[in-house]
Amino acid sequence: MKANIPNVKKKRVVIIGGGFGGLKLAEKISTKNYQVVLIDKNNYHQFQPLFYQVATAGLEPSSIVFPFRKIFHDQDDFHFRLGEVLRINEEENTIDTTIGLITFDYLVIASGADTNFFGNKNIEQFSYPMKSIQEALSLRNTLFQHFEDAINTANLKEREKLLTIVVVGGGPTGVEVAGTLAEMKSHILPKDYPDMDFTQMKIVLLEGAPRVLNAMDNVSCVKAEKYLEDLGVEVKTGVRVLDYDGEEVFIKGEESIFTKTLIWSAGVKGNLLEGLNEKVYIQGGRIQVDRFNLVESSNKNIYAIGDVAAMIKEEYPRGHPQMAQPAIQQGLNLAKNLNRIIEGKPLKEFSYKNLGSMATIGRNKAVVELPSYKFQGFFAWVVWLVVHLKSILGVKNKFIVLINWIWNYVTYNLSLRLIIKPNERSK
Amino acid sequence: MKANIPNVKKKRVVIIGGGFGGLKLAEKISTKNYQVVLIDKNNYHQFQPLFYQVATAGLEPSSIVFPFRKIFHDQDDFHFRLGEVLRINEEENTIDTTIGLITFDYLVIASGADTNFFGNKNIEQFSYPMKSIQEALSLRNTLFQHFEDAINTANLKEREKLLTIVVVGGGPTGVEVAGTLAEMKSHILPKDYPDMDFTQMKIVLLEGAPRVLNAMDNVSCVKAEKYLEDLGVEVKTGVRVLDYDGEEVFIKGEESIFTKTLIWSAGVKGNLLEGLNEKVYIQGGRIQVDRFNLVESSNKNIYAIGDVAAMIKEEYPRGHPQMAQPAIQQGLNLAKNLNRIIEGKPLKEFSYKNLGSMATIGRNKAVVELPSYKFQGFFAWVVWLVVHLKSILGVKNKFIVLINWIWNYVTYNLSLRLIIKPNERSK
Repeated sequence: MKANIPNVKKKRVVIIGGGFGGLKLAEKISTKNYQVVLIDKNNYHQFQPLFYQVATAGLEPSSIVFPFRKIFHDQDDFHFRLGEVLRINEEENTIDTTIGLITFDYLVIASGADTNFFGNKNIEQFSYPMKSIQEALSLRNTLFQHFEDAINTANLKEREKLLTIVVVGGGPTGVEVAGTLAEMKSHILPKDYPDMDFTQMKIVLLEGAPRVLNAMDNVSCVKAEKYLEDLGVEVKTGVRVLDYDGEEVFIKGEESIFTKTLIWSAGVKGNLLEGLNEKVYIQGGRIQVDRFNLVESSNKNIYAIGDVAAMIKEEYPRGHPQMAQPAIQQGLNLAKNLNRIIEGKPLKEFSYKNLGSMATIGRNKAVVELPSYKFQGFFAWVVWLVVHLKSILGVKNKFIVLINWIWNYVTYNLSLRLIIKPNERSK
Repeated sequence: MKANIPNVKKKRVVIIGGGFGGLKLAEKISTKNYQVVLIDKNNYHQFQPLFYQVATAGLEPSSIVFPFRKIFHDQDDFHFRLGEVLRINEEENTIDTTIGLITFDYLVIASGADTNFFGNKNIEQFSYPMKSIQEALSLRNTLFQHFEDAINTANLKEREKLLTIVVVGGGPTGVEVAGTLAEMKSHILPKDYPDMDFTQMKIVLLEGAPRVLNAMDNVSCVKAEKYLEDLGVEVKTGVRVLDYDGEEVFIKGEESIFTKTLIWSAGVKGNLLEGLNEKVYIQGGRIQVDRFNLVESSNKNIYAIGDVAAMIKEEYPRGHPQMAQPAIQQGLNLAKNLNRIIEGKPLKEFSYKNLGSMATIGRNKAVVELPSYKFQGFFAWVVWLVVHLKSILGVKNKFIVLINWIWNYVTYNLSLRLIIKPNERSK
């Protein structure tokens, strides 16, 4: 069965995945030159850096996701399709998808990365990752269900497991979620559950590297750890999690920790697609590409960008960091190059401009590293807010997020502590 | 197993369900006099009158639901419990619940009403009701999934089924959802799906009574039908739906209609609880109560209020209308009476003050009936907006709903057209 996409004379660019990279590419490619087909398993773009606020009841999903069809209202010959890619057929220039066969002239793989459980099936089964809005919602439901369970149990051991939250992985996501949970413990939960003793509640952050935010400069790491400890988070670095059975976290050479909530943000791996020559994959399931994001083994018409792609350079021996900026910049460069192909102009190599990195730990607490300047504290926190607000798509979404942030800042009271469970009837 | 609720010397009032009636009761009962336990299967109060806006992507769930724990932050000796009631044990003064046994001195059944499929298992299986926020979300997902399916099929018969939406039941919910869908068809969908011919899209409203909004005055019914038809809704009154197999709606004495989306808002029935003497139930699964909302067969300590209760009076031979106002007023009256019991004062009979009824059909289009005055059109629509906004709990929620409404009014563009599917990991 063929997917139902109009046939036109222009060449067709098929983009797999509408994350930061795929979206930027789709926006900037000229639909005078190309017919653009974007296929994604969701009908919306997700703003990943704020998933942790959805998981901790600070923002609604709709504030940080945006329907593709609305983004592309004004673009002719752009075709969004909701579906999953099953296989790439390099030789035939087609992909098999859940909505049928799609032919392409150029294919861009922008399928992103998913949680890496490093082969541990128990952790995969029992832990809570945060790599999609659904997972963030699922974590939100679980957190509040566990508080409800805790207040209704007279068994102290059981209550301890319900009130202990272990976060594995001290990257920005882990740090941000641990900090937010600590603030919730101080400001909100005692009001919501006046009968419960929240001194029993523990938030533990486990990191394998010697420091949290290990990709950042030492001054940021030290400050971030101090902020976390000030908030009451137990930070343990240089530890290795061995296993988790849904109740107990086993740690190499240390006492295990009892918890019913293990949040797993310890790593990512590329979202693999069947059909590509296996030689293109390198460590972490990333697809090796050349300086133009081309997958070299292909018929010179398959590209990969963003988290799933690895462009090996001297400064980036394992590929660029798996964050929004490299994906956005690669999407933009590739869009320009595809336009240049039609215009007969020479292509430009990708060159990454590091705009810096940042993480927020809590109210008035963040660390920011710009290329020329590192700073922490209140001003860093304001910069974090402004940068993230600016990056959210859509004026209304920006406005709603801003109101939520102001509200939460003033009242200390996120009001989205809802357990909205899936409905079986949902198709 | 006993549920874990502190034992105090005061008498305990257990309220089943935090809808309009249960919530008002819980708010107004004096916790100086009583320990109050509210049990609900959700951790939030739901504002039912706006479910249809969630289903049609106009509002986020969080704008119209509100966590119980937050509502009762400042109330001592109030205990919310998340759980479902399995059985009432009249003789023992206890209820069995999913979180254990709960004893009561007074029990108030405020469990509301659910969709009535009138015994038709097919309709129950294949249609989409709208009596909970989960069902509204499920309908939202389905609507937009069907549009995605429609654009990807080349089969015209299949596309017809996907683009036809049948609403059964011409009460306020049915009228409101049909009107909103018609506006979406005109203003939004052609922009989202530029390749699809939306003249093929049909919205049909089926009602068994001779008029839509049959509980209202004739002038309102006629106007509402005209508004619907102006918007392009096919209104068929006096028709009886016999069956539905997921693809075809069978109608008595008429041609059947092919559709994959049947929205069922044709009636409600009381949410039954096991254990009560069966004699208390009357038509529609409602519990007959006396003028004080007492279930007479009980040991004079079980009450029922709201949709699930039926207080038979001359003006209301089948009980009060199953809407917010009777529930709220009964909750308030019962709270006062329970306080009077402790104070040794005589109880007051319930007396319903009809504040009127209203329904909105679309932009600038509504019908309003106040006790003394009936009007339609733009002014009615403004009154509808103000009354509903005023009734939503919480300043922030009011504000967010208002922004969404203004935004939608100005831009014609609801931006929540998201298919957020349940996550299996959710517990």
